[in-house]
Amino acid sequence: MKFTIDQIAAMLQGKVIGSGTDTISTIGKIEDAGKGAIAFLANPKYEKYIYTTQASAVLVRDDFEPEKPVGTTLIKVKDPYSGFTRLLEEYDKLMSYVKEGIEEPSFIAPDAETGERIYRGAFSYIGSKCKIGHNVKIYPHVYIGDNVSIGDNCILYSGVKIYHNTVMGNNCIVHSGTVVGSDGFGFAPQDDGTYKKIPQLGNVIIRDDVEIGANTVIDRATMGHTIIDKGVKLDNLVQIAHNVEIGANTVVASQTGISGSTKLGKNCVLAGQVGLVGHIEIADRVTLAAKTGLSKSVKEPGTIKFGYPAMDHKEYLKSHAVFRNLPELNRRVHELEKKVLNLRAN
Amino acid sequence: MKFTIDQIAAMLQGKVIGSGTDTISTIGKIEDAGKGAIAFLANPKYEKYIYTTQASAVLVRDDFEPEKPVGTTLIKVKDPYSGFTRLLEEYDKLMSYVKEGIEEPSFIAPDAETGERIYRGAFSYIGSKCKIGHNVKIYPHVYIGDNVSIGDNCILYSGVKIYHNTVMGNNCIVHSGTVVGSDGFGFAPQDDGTYKKIPQLGNVIIRDDVEIGANTVIDRATMGHTIIDKGVKLDNLVQIAHNVEIGANTVVASQTGISGSTKLGKNCVLAGQVGLVGHIEIADRVTLAAKTGLSKSVKEPGTIKFGYPAMDHKEYLKSHAVFRNLPELNRRVHELEKKVLNLRAN
Amino acid sequence: MKFTIDQIAAMLQGKVIGSGTDTISTIGKIEDAGKGAIAFLANPKYEKYIYTTQASAVLVRDDFEPEKPVGTTLIKVKDPYSGFTRLLEEYDKLMSYVKEGIEEPSFIAPDAETGERIYRGAFSYIGSKCKIGHNVKIYPHVYIGDNVSIGDNCILYSGVKIYHNTVMGNNCIVHSGTVVGSDGFGFAPQDDGTYKKIPQLGNVIIRDDVEIGANTVIDRATMGHTIIDKGVKLDNLVQIAHNVEIGANTVVASQTGISGSTKLGKNCVLAGQVGLVGHIEIADRVTLAAKTGLSKSVKEPGTIKFGYPAMDHKEYLKSHAVFRNLPELNRRVHELEKKVLNLRAN
Repeated sequence: MKFTIDQIAAMLQGKVIGSGTDTISTIGKIEDAGKGAIAFLANPKYEKYIYTTQASAVLVRDDFEPEKPVGTTLIKVKDPYSGFTRLLEEYDKLMSYVKEGIEEPSFIAPDAETGERIYRGAFSYIGSKCKIGHNVKIYPHVYIGDNVSIGDNCILYSGVKIYHNTVMGNNCIVHSGTVVGSDGFGFAPQDDGTYKKIPQLGNVIIRDDVEIGANTVIDRATMGHTIIDKGVKLDNLVQIAHNVEIGANTVVASQTGISGSTKLGKNCVLAGQVGLVGHIEIADRVTLAAKTGLSKSVKEPGTIKFGYPAMDHKEYLKSHAVFRNLPELNRRVHELEKKVLNLRAN
Repeated sequence: MKFTIDQIAAMLQGKVIGSGTDTISTIGKIEDAGKGAIAFLANPKYEKYIYTTQASAVLVRDDFEPEKPVGTTLIKVKDPYSGFTRLLEEYDKLMSYVKEGIEEPSFIAPDAETGERIYRGAFSYIGSKCKIGHNVKIYPHVYIGDNVSIGDNCILYSGVKIYHNTVMGNNCIVHSGTVVGSDGFGFAPQDDGTYKKIPQLGNVIIRDDVEIGANTVIDRATMGHTIIDKGVKLDNLVQIAHNVEIGANTVVASQTGISGSTKLGKNCVLAGQVGLVGHIEIADRVTLAAKTGLSKSVKEPGTIKFGYPAMDHKEYLKSHAVFRNLPELNRRVHELEKKVLNLRAN
Repeated sequence: MKFTIDQIAAMLQGKVIGSGTDTISTIGKIEDAGKGAIAFLANPKYEKYIYTTQASAVLVRDDFEPEKPVGTTLIKVKDPYSGFTRLLEEYDKLMSYVKEGIEEPSFIAPDAETGERIYRGAFSYIGSKCKIGHNVKIYPHVYIGDNVSIGDNCILYSGVKIYHNTVMGNNCIVHSGTVVGSDGFGFAPQDDGTYKKIPQLGNVIIRDDVEIGANTVIDRATMGHTIIDKGVKLDNLVQIAHNVEIGANTVVASQTGISGSTKLGKNCVLAGQVGLVGHIEIADRVTLAAKTGLSKSVKEPGTIKFGYPAMDHKEYLKSHAVFRNLPELNRRVHELEKKVLNLRAN
């Protein structure tokens, strides 16, 4: 990246306060960026750094007025954070090692089809009857089982494992170690205490624009489909059981688990280490706070739940405030009992 | 699968109510199966679909009597669910891509032994002195370290990693990304605040008929063995620490963690996201509800525990019912205090 | 291992009580070790076994005096546990399969550099511009992306995935399936309900003497670095989000998750299944009990926290003791209400 401050300001439709002729060659955080770097200020907590930063330029909000002199050039924009994100994207394009071509040895079944501008890393495996779109990057050690379909512009990082019959849309990113299509956890208890495996014959469907973190697992359906809808973002180490359906643009943070056949609405937010039982339904725009355990359906869109068993978020916090003082409450009741005993004795 | 309804009924020892001559070519769920499909009805919640299903046949219980006319053929069996499972198995056998033979490049040490009808996928690795049984499927990117023994009829899906000296019985299934035999988490604190690694010299023993989900980890013992007994079923993303022993037919759901040297009895059920401290013992047939944290041994077989620290399941629910209303309880105590103060003032 | 008891006693500066001429060929646990084995006794709970053990020798504390006759030779040392650990290390060196050399096929970019005495397993991958130190063991199916730097004496077990630009120090051990450098979970919400990916341009820095368990994930920083400092030990299935910093010698147990930009001090201990929100700071020597959820910074070094939302450890236990009896407390308040009503009626 080699732009002048003026060029960057023009790109972001911002206004330059100070000199615009210096060259920006990198990006940084306001508290530790150096000369030649551009940073941003969005959170007021970081405002103090604007007076000490060594960055050559800082993106600030339209209405920001420094209370003291600043030694850096300011670029005033409507939204410094999203402006900075745009810069990051440009920087990423320039920096990223563009992978293309085929490294050997790699394995592809004779009846598999791949599109144009593909990257097939060394030791990658593509099974029989697979259909892979254009501009797909398949990193080393990726396994794609038989009869898998993958759309255009997808990236599968090293070690991703896709079981047979999985369907993936366009523009998806899957990080290392994630497993898609493993058998659902289904066993029929027998009279002698053993379990008999229930064959898992369905598959996984992942729609467009989905990103999945590292070492996450999505099980195939017993019958039918496990469905990850358009625009869903799953973090690392997430568990998605068989026949789960996740609505469009829902976000699931790390180490959360969703049990079998549960259906989530659109635009939900599940924080980290949340657990959902099976066979329930969650409305759109529901938020589950970290570590929440949900054992019942949530019908009201926009609800916020917390705790385990899950309660309304505010109610939980009120109950927990009393919980913190339970020994004191217990003592007060004991005191009352003594006083009432005295009163009755009189 | 191409059977007539009569043939299927005969196979399942069921009784046909309606026409038995139609051909069944697939399987489905009662709510969305179409012509040519067979479905089942076990859960009364789904009974309404029997009157609208497009399935050509539905397995129902012996004693099921429709309240309205049905447009599908019924096959009455003792247990529709297990009957259906049997059909799934037949279907699975016909559908599954039977893997056999050796794909290249693959790696096998000269002194390793493998049985008959083996599948060794491309990029699979079998180390020195390994003994692999008959009819074993080793998918691409599987790693089997030195001196590992694996019985007959096992399936190791792509990317399974088995460390040296592991012993696995017959008929085991291990899903992608699961690690067996990694070092236990053992470090001796030193006076200067650093930790010194304690060598982990034991191994992992997995007995017959065990199934393990994806991205699960089973650590090797410090000394001796980490033991997964016959018929145990482990879900995805489960953590089994060093020297743990899990009794026969115990089932462990996703994201549950069992700390070092803890011993579980037979036929226990651990729900999801449960945690157990180390060095405790759990009796047979114990159930731990989801997210339970267990820090003490459970001696009574058949106990159900819940919460953290874990309590008797029913007691926990009673306490939690009051917890939900703690602000109200607090208010009532405050009210009493005022009244008692008034009474004493009079 | 073939030493006499006298030789072992000399090595550990211990005093032999009994015959020192027998040969020790293996190690074991006091409760099940046999002839030719050495065991140790540190925990008084196991003292009963000293009178029945078949081990040829047992390490005991300096001041241990048996209450009954013992049939084994005792070696008295200052610290039996650390003495035993030292024996384990010796045993490990003799037993371990020393890996060295290059197995084929393996992949290394022409411009990557590796040191002396390297092991590169079959199907391992080393990307462009990598610098790998001396005496490094890279097991089969390891992926090392472009421009990664790895110090001396590191071990990367089968299936470890290291993304581009990662920096790792000396003497590190990473277990199978662990992912280092995957993208942080960063998405900017858009007005239409979709999310836009925020490019993750930083990297991961791992300092000397770090050990990481299996199937753990450490995300790269958005900008700057995710830092795992010297001597840190991470267990299996741990989640470390983008821009997290973990201080020297901090220990993190299995299935714990640390959210973005949170900073941990030195010598902290995080038990299993703990969760930390993002953007908080934890002082040195803080302990978080199992399953704790921490949503605020902890400024006091040495604090012990428990529960969720986290409380002082002892306070939590006191509150929980009352929680166990909440139905009884509720009944007592109800009783008081009746009595006070009666008193006021009189």
